[in-house]
Amino acid sequence: MQGKIVTISRQCGSGGHSIGSELAKRLDVPFYDKEIIEMAAKESGFQREFIEETGEHMNSSLLFNIARHVAYAGRGNYEDYQPLQDQLYFTQVKIVKELAGKGSCVIVGRCADYILRNRNDVLNVFIHADMEYKKNHCLERGQFSGEDAEDMIRRRDKLRADHYRYYTDEKWGASTNYHLCLDSSVFGIEKCVSIIEDACKGMYPAS
Amino acid sequence: MQGKIVTISRQCGSGGHSIGSELAKRLDVPFYDKEIIEMAAKESGFQREFIEETGEHMNSSLLFNIARHVAYAGRGNYEDYQPLQDQLYFTQVKIVKELAGKGSCVIVGRCADYILRNRNDVLNVFIHADMEYKKNHCLERGQFSGEDAEDMIRRRDKLRADHYRYYTDEKWGASTNYHLCLDSSVFGIEKCVSIIEDACKGMYPAS
Repeated sequence: MQGKIVTISRQCGSGGHSIGSELAKRLDVPFYDKEIIEMAAKESGFQREFIEETGEHMNSSLLFNIARHVAYAGRGNYEDYQPLQDQLYFTQVKIVKELAGKGSCVIVGRCADYILRNRNDVLNVFIHADMEYKKNHCLERGQFSGEDAEDMIRRRDKLRADHYRYYTDEKWGASTNYHLCLDSSVFGIEKCVSIIEDACKGMYPAS
Repeated sequence: MQGKIVTISRQCGSGGHSIGSELAKRLDVPFYDKEIIEMAAKESGFQREFIEETGEHMNSSLLFNIARHVAYAGRGNYEDYQPLQDQLYFTQVKIVKELAGKGSCVIVGRCADYILRNRNDVLNVFIHADMEYKKNHCLERGQFSGEDAEDMIRRRDKLRADHYRYYTDEKWGASTNYHLCLDSSVFGIEKCVSIIEDACKGMYPAS
């Protein structure tokens, strides 16, 4: 596959990471998910934990705002400084564009669909699933405790949606923002991968 | 194919009708789109034109409301009468359920995804496309004049979205309301049909 990029946006617990990873293997192209966190840490000097917490989530917590004030302290006019969250976002924009510029790949999250909107070789995919599936998926991976899983999943997706809205002015998960949306609780991981692989071929018949 | 129903919701001009029709041929199952208008006319006694105008569109025009008042005139308490639009909706609900009860089929529009939500043998698909594609598709079919096409398409989709919201309390076109969403301007009619056909198999491997 030459000159093809697949972006995968996904609800928490929908298996988007696994789908992206398996797709990249099948297409024999690089896969970028958490890797972008490492790159952003290197590029920006931000802590890995800060990037993990803030890179895809709207962060308006008190603690975050205090951290911002501390960071600005004594650095002149407050207004002159780009908020840390914006700095991180634009670091990720730079990284995503650079990765796409290198050639075919699969990128999970990071508003990559929006960041790469001016390219014509990108397939944008959104993966969602019903709550039962997402809960089980998270519990199997030990991501949340059984009692809190549902609340945590909703919260995580709310923060992702807010983040996407803030930086793109678009609605996260609206079908019209993606070329292909799939319910992984109905198709399963394997079938989602093969549908996306097939869709890639349909999109660029020349490949 | 046994016991499978595909519902296709679609933006105006996205080619959803053609996709559904071709899919039904390939699956060798009945196809229902405008046919439901004829059935609803027979069942309800409403004029074909009224059903075409109101069956999938929120109709709050002055003319419609006047017609409603006229229809109620002298029939006792106004509140006792179900608005005509509701009468038509529930006629269509009955028809869609009956059609699904007969066996495998492809149904376009009519909130069929929502009406059949309690069945577990239904694949819900949403087809959308970019405005350029939709405009060309409508103009080729002589549906609107060139000058008005874009406004008419937006208006038609707005009325469909309002109608869906009113009767389902859900958002029309939100990816989470469908198992599969496709951008027909990226894949084309043929490829959309084959992706849906493949997805049917993925959903019910036993078939």
